[in-house]
Amino acid sequence: MRVLGIDPGLTRCGVGVVEGEVGRPLRLVDVGVIRTSADLPIPERLVSIERGLEAWIEEHRPDVVAVERVFARSDVSTVMGTAQASGIAMVCAARRGLRVAMHTPSEVKAAVSGNGRADKAQVGLMVTRILRLDSTPKPADAADALALAITQIWRGGAQSRIEAAAAKAGVQAGVTR
Amino acid sequence: MRVLGIDPGLTRCGVGVVEGEVGRPLRLVDVGVIRTSADLPIPERLVSIERGLEAWIEEHRPDVVAVERVFARSDVSTVMGTAQASGIAMVCAARRGLRVAMHTPSEVKAAVSGNGRADKAQVGLMVTRILRLDSTPKPADAADALALAITQIWRGGAQSRIEAAAAKAGVQAGVTR
Repeated sequence: MRVLGIDPGLTRCGVGVVEGEVGRPLRLVDVGVIRTSADLPIPERLVSIERGLEAWIEEHRPDVVAVERVFARSDVSTVMGTAQASGIAMVCAARRGLRVAMHTPSEVKAAVSGNGRADKAQVGLMVTRILRLDSTPKPADAADALALAITQIWRGGAQSRIEAAAAKAGVQAGVTR
Repeated sequence: MRVLGIDPGLTRCGVGVVEGEVGRPLRLVDVGVIRTSADLPIPERLVSIERGLEAWIEEHRPDVVAVERVFARSDVSTVMGTAQASGIAMVCAARRGLRVAMHTPSEVKAAVSGNGRADKAQVGLMVTRILRLDSTPKPADAADALALAITQIWRGGAQSRIEAAAAKAGVQAGVTR
């Protein structure tokens, strides 16, 4: 399975592609960051993010796209930009018929480090170990995108089964498609 | 000038097209609501909103798109959906090269009613009078979209001049293109 993880953001949108299966070593395919200038108007920045994500999907043809679930945090203006970028990410995937999975930051931290309150450095270190890299991907948004992709490969199967069972029971679960 | 006003929302996205110039009677071109079911996953709902907005832009060919500026309010889950829908609205306009203007709810209320704290009923009433309609457009999201379009026609010119002056001075203003 090939997963594109997206850590949405207006200034830096982390993107990481990981390939593998549960119980086998995972492989880094590609990692990067889509940047947009704070000097540009927001609509143009969102269009740049859309073009960037389209190019990543085009090039790497993921089976699933995993997007960080956005929550309201202290800095309201940042949250709005993050939510807008996450909406663009979801649309880029969904209009191609790709499954979109969402994971909260604490789910991702717990999946890769065993600790839902792990800090950025710990997440970066675990991503480096899990993918057997020589150095930690920088910036943190890039490492976070890989952590999202790893989480999807490791937890996505179970979450899909929970989702399928919940759908039968008429309940909404955390993963959407 | 023809303006498409968009009141972004996941469940109901208000859309309204108004034509006219400052100092002349304004004309309603079309008004409606793009609805998506809360039973669908968010990515699919956003794709439906994108398709709906594309169809409105295609049909009515606006000169400017006016989108409500989203702020963090009490209900966090609603804000996230609204922010995501507003991101889609901005991208739909910006990737066609259309100018995107943003107005806060209080700017819109002040523009159409003279009172930045006007309630939904007052805004609806003023939209009905300004556009010389037989009845108030329903639901409120539809009337709000028309109020946004009216605000853009009445205030957009001044705001553009402020923006141009601010751009010369290297400052960011409220309207973006």
